[in-house]
Amino acid sequence: MEPIRVGLLGLGIVGGGTFKVLERNADEIARRAGRRIVVTKVGERDVARARARVGADVAVEADAFAVARDPEIDIVVELIGGVTVARQLVLEAIANGKHVVTANKALLANHGNEIFAAARERGVMVAFEAAVAGGIPIIKAIREGLTANRIEWVAGIINGTTNFILSEMRSRGLPFEEVLAEAQRLGYAEADPTFDIEGIDAAHKLTLLASMAFGIPVQFSRAYVEGITRLSSVDIRHAERLGYRIKLLAITKKRPEGVELRVHPTLVPAGRLIANVEGAMNAVLVNGDAVGPTLYYGQGAGEEPTASAVVADLVDVTRLDTADPGHRVPHLAFQPEALADLPILDIGDVRSAYYLRLRVRDQPGVMAELARILADNQISINSMLQQQPEDEGDGADIIFLTHEALERDVDNAIAQMQALDVVTSDVTRLRMEQLA
Amino acid sequence: MEPIRVGLLGLGIVGGGTFKVLERNADEIARRAGRRIVVTKVGERDVARARARVGADVAVEADAFAVARDPEIDIVVELIGGVTVARQLVLEAIANGKHVVTANKALLANHGNEIFAAARERGVMVAFEAAVAGGIPIIKAIREGLTANRIEWVAGIINGTTNFILSEMRSRGLPFEEVLAEAQRLGYAEADPTFDIEGIDAAHKLTLLASMAFGIPVQFSRAYVEGITRLSSVDIRHAERLGYRIKLLAITKKRPEGVELRVHPTLVPAGRLIANVEGAMNAVLVNGDAVGPTLYYGQGAGEEPTASAVVADLVDVTRLDTADPGHRVPHLAFQPEALADLPILDIGDVRSAYYLRLRVRDQPGVMAELARILADNQISINSMLQQQPEDEGDGADIIFLTHEALERDVDNAIAQMQALDVVTSDVTRLRMEQLA
Repeated sequence: MEPIRVGLLGLGIVGGGTFKVLERNADEIARRAGRRIVVTKVGERDVARARARVGADVAVEADAFAVARDPEIDIVVELIGGVTVARQLVLEAIANGKHVVTANKALLANHGNEIFAAARERGVMVAFEAAVAGGIPIIKAIREGLTANRIEWVAGIINGTTNFILSEMRSRGLPFEEVLAEAQRLGYAEADPTFDIEGIDAAHKLTLLASMAFGIPVQFSRAYVEGITRLSSVDIRHAERLGYRIKLLAITKKRPEGVELRVHPTLVPAGRLIANVEGAMNAVLVNGDAVGPTLYYGQGAGEEPTASAVVADLVDVTRLDTADPGHRVPHLAFQPEALADLPILDIGDVRSAYYLRLRVRDQPGVMAELARILADNQISINSMLQQQPEDEGDGADIIFLTHEALERDVDNAIAQMQALDVVTSDVTRLRMEQLA
Repeated sequence: MEPIRVGLLGLGIVGGGTFKVLERNADEIARRAGRRIVVTKVGERDVARARARVGADVAVEADAFAVARDPEIDIVVELIGGVTVARQLVLEAIANGKHVVTANKALLANHGNEIFAAARERGVMVAFEAAVAGGIPIIKAIREGLTANRIEWVAGIINGTTNFILSEMRSRGLPFEEVLAEAQRLGYAEADPTFDIEGIDAAHKLTLLASMAFGIPVQFSRAYVEGITRLSSVDIRHAERLGYRIKLLAITKKRPEGVELRVHPTLVPAGRLIANVEGAMNAVLVNGDAVGPTLYYGQGAGEEPTASAVVADLVDVTRLDTADPGHRVPHLAFQPEALADLPILDIGDVRSAYYLRLRVRDQPGVMAELARILADNQISINSMLQQQPEDEGDGADIIFLTHEALERDVDNAIAQMQALDVVTSDVTRLRMEQLA
């Protein structure tokens, strides 16, 4: 059988890794795919560097659009990143009847519905295993491995940068800014780390997972996103004492009234496997009604782990290249005409357990007043801790762990606590999940 | 589109679970598969019980062969278990042009080559996700999710019964026999637990994983199998003190000279995620050259977790029902004509680190003699512990942890130690893996 011809757009870290893995493991891959998978063209602005990298057998074009339109190309791999040009390139490739493989979560979280519709129209595949959790085959697991299940929730550590930062903050007791600077030195965080530390990258990925888990269109703009920049070491220590670890979790849950879609620092029982995922590693927990909880763990980023997912997609696409579209897995796991219109819930309508920390004046009746506010707002207390301030300030620090409550009720309770004279600090609120 | 028609052979625990999940989640499954998946016939000796269970719309046959031959059936699901009749049924279904889904690891580990060849010949699929690690989509991960990689090794906890027993032995300090009896009371172990506790069930599953990881024929008879029946609580305690946990691991590694295929109790560093897989849960670590280590965790047995895998296979098979065989994933991950003839290594040719425990007379020169024996056999010592016997017996207990060595050299060293007058006990040998 003729080799399948791949046009590779972008020869950066992941593009270079993909080229390298395809070359190094060419025989092993062909033994699986039944056909050789060969990069015949590269689209890369830095033509000289690309030429030096890929050798004489591979054509290099400065204009990625020329590759996307090239009749000699069967599959376009988009590894340029960003949203605007990437969107045009992907749509151009689709319009020219090419399958697309991409690692671009920002693109699909924002323009997935448009892109998948165009691909369906034209009868081509868009594969994106590399867009979520690097080399972990989590998209395949949710989309194909758990098809028997009504998926109930998904909770993942799907941003390695923030997990590295949180792991270091906990194990070494260092503040956020210091660890971030170190992560930047080590290459775990980018010069502009906003997308990672503000939770946006995780929310992009979560948006895709939620669509595949529940059969809903991609709706990134409806996600609640809270990063780790305001997380204090004090709360990491308190959480630990109470038997919890704080992780930046991306959580999506199906409720009768809609879908929760939220990224935020979260207390997780320290004994859970996912609480012990350290450093830059990723892990995703998926709970299905038949299978129960399943967990998928591995490297969520990096040159070769991400290339591993890109190449797995290339093998899948190669295998189904000429298959009838009915034989292919639907982009979002569910048949496009069978997507549900379940709304994404506002954060106020989310249900979670909570960790609340506040400082109060040390005087009689304070606890009664706080407890009354919680009760008035239908929030029941799971446990409570009162202690002298670590910083030797006046008053007492109080921590409540609540049972599951409605976020809007917790907002009200916090506002009412904040209005009390005896409360001398802001009320810190973190969410907490049992994940079982 | 017409529903696809399933004939279900065996309405025991997994068969009943499969029927239940297909019924309960029928809409969700059809939204994914694009077609309804309907059990139209059941083959079950206890006809009356089956009739009561499946209702009037489903035909029940006492003769499973009648279902396997039935022209009105598209897919046969074999959940009878055992090897002899199951083999005949599966071959009969294939000969009649039906796809097969099975959870039967014993069958495929012993007769997989014959069955896959017959299926290829007839152009049908044999799917077996449920045969390994219950609801965890580990076959899909290895066969499709990691196709970019040269897989280097796989190590798994793939028998829930033995993991439950080991977890209880460790956490409660109880001996094997006592925990086994409890496991039988709780339904975690069968009345005849031989297949589980002797490691045979794990070796069946490992045989399939190894074939898919390395592209070799199924070769169960070449596996080295050692169960947990001779494992002593003393070694669990020593391991813990040294920073390790003992798990029954199923391990397969690719070496230049062949493939290691072995099941045995194994010391694993206590900090590894897989060392913290407790109770009846399963987990499989897969190490690929590009992706690095990835781990898959979940319930490895039970009614609905196993049904989850059976139904996922049904969805895959339904999707590719009429596809050209070239569009389907090869049974053993690699194209059948591209399987390798790498030999399975004898246990003597395996390389591992070791834990050796022995009792010696408390007299000068003993340690020097033992150390000399190890050195003479090219075994280097990683760490060593000497202590008074827990049972207050005479002499001293010595534990060696070695670096990686050849099993045959360790056999020799043990024989030489055993021949010494000063060695007053048998030498206990356990294998040890770093898994990183």
